Amino acid sequence: MAKTTVRRHAERGRYDPVSAYEILDEALICHVAFTDDNDVYNIPMIPVRINCDLYLHTSIKSRFYQVVSGGTKVCVTITLVDGLVLAKSAYNSSMNYRSVMLFGTMLPVIDPVEKVMFSEKLTEKIAKGRWNDCRLPNERELKSTGILKMTIKEFSVKIRSGPPVDESGDLSLPHWSWVIPVMVCHGNPVTSTVDDGKLEPPDYLTPS
Amino acid sequence: MAKTTVRRHAERGRYDPVSAYEILDEALICHVAFTDDNDVYNIPMIPVRINCDLYLHTSIKSRFYQVVSGGTKVCVTITLVDGLVLAKSAYNSSMNYRSVMLFGTMLPVIDPVEKVMFSEKLTEKIAKGRWNDCRLPNERELKSTGILKMTIKEFSVKIRSGPPVDESGDLSLPHWSWVIPVMVCHGNPVTSTVDDGKLEPPDYLTPS
Repeated sequence: MAKTTVRRHAERGRYDPVSAYEILDEALICHVAFTDDNDVYNIPMIPVRINCDLYLHTSIKSRFYQVVSGGTKVCVTITLVDGLVLAKSAYNSSMNYRSVMLFGTMLPVIDPVEKVMFSEKLTEKIAKGRWNDCRLPNERELKSTGILKMTIKEFSVKIRSGPPVDESGDLSLPHWSWVIPVMVCHGNPVTSTVDDGKLEPPDYLTPS
Repeated sequence: MAKTTVRRHAERGRYDPVSAYEILDEALICHVAFTDDNDVYNIPMIPVRINCDLYLHTSIKSRFYQVVSGGTKVCVTITLVDGLVLAKSAYNSSMNYRSVMLFGTMLPVIDPVEKVMFSEKLTEKIAKGRWNDCRLPNERELKSTGILKMTIKEFSVKIRSGPPVDESGDLSLPHWSWVIPVMVCHGNPVTSTVDDGKLEPPDYLTPS
């Protein structure tokens, strides 16, 4: 169920889960807002989606884990910037972006099998192929990792794409207008001095 | 004054304003958490810093403007991802990042001169040189823009950089380890069909 409050720029709204999933899967970071003792906090975390659930992880000792596993409401937001939109006027300039805002409460993940499944998904999100080329988590590590999950059901997606919307009176002005694309790039992998050049970066780490 | 709660990974903390300013200046997006009517929200906005103040803008009609200009506490967070940190173990893998979290309340900006100063700073942040090559905001546009500012005084910066920290027992494992750099890239400017190729992208828009 999508959040149905009245929204500015309603034409940018999307209410299908797949739009939300795509943003969640692409993002390296989400920001998680919650309140504690009358203060509001906003913490960066790595979003991991498995089917229709969002998983987050932290230390089991963190304040975040203790507060949020107690049932406090969270709002998780991701914004991916796709372009700088330069209209002929400063006022109509904008950004192209895809954002998702999720609302709900989170439950702690206790089942060791589900914890391992999460670890695999997280590891593969960061570098596809890595799970079969690293030392897997042991029991102590799994115990110290606080994992929380929420079902993705109350959310709001907003997407802006395309050229600027100039006012008709501005169209003939001699200022260049349209879009500068923005994207996240990966550089060449940097080999560890620990390995002293003995190990080459594996094929799955070539820049995308 | 930096926020002085007990923090995990205390070695990653920075408490000087310049570290906060650098992150605010580089970021295209911040996420602003606030509460309204017992719900928590988290909205993407463009952070603009002028001296020791953070400025945000929205429509003067937005719920955000109305709630936050009433003195509601906000927590503004930015996270810039610099690298994927692949340790030999899944558990010790991490990200390199720079984040800032600001706490406070915001005041509406009413002075028209300050509103123009903000507009210039925003426009120049998106594309340096653009303020002298666009149609400047008129009185109607300035009136409809809701601008809020907060003094940057209660904040927390966290920075992780460098290679993974592998456990000694993992060092001889045959898995490649270290860092894949991550950065934000700009593509070539896309010319508008409105201009029909008559105007070339100006020099200040060449990819960075």
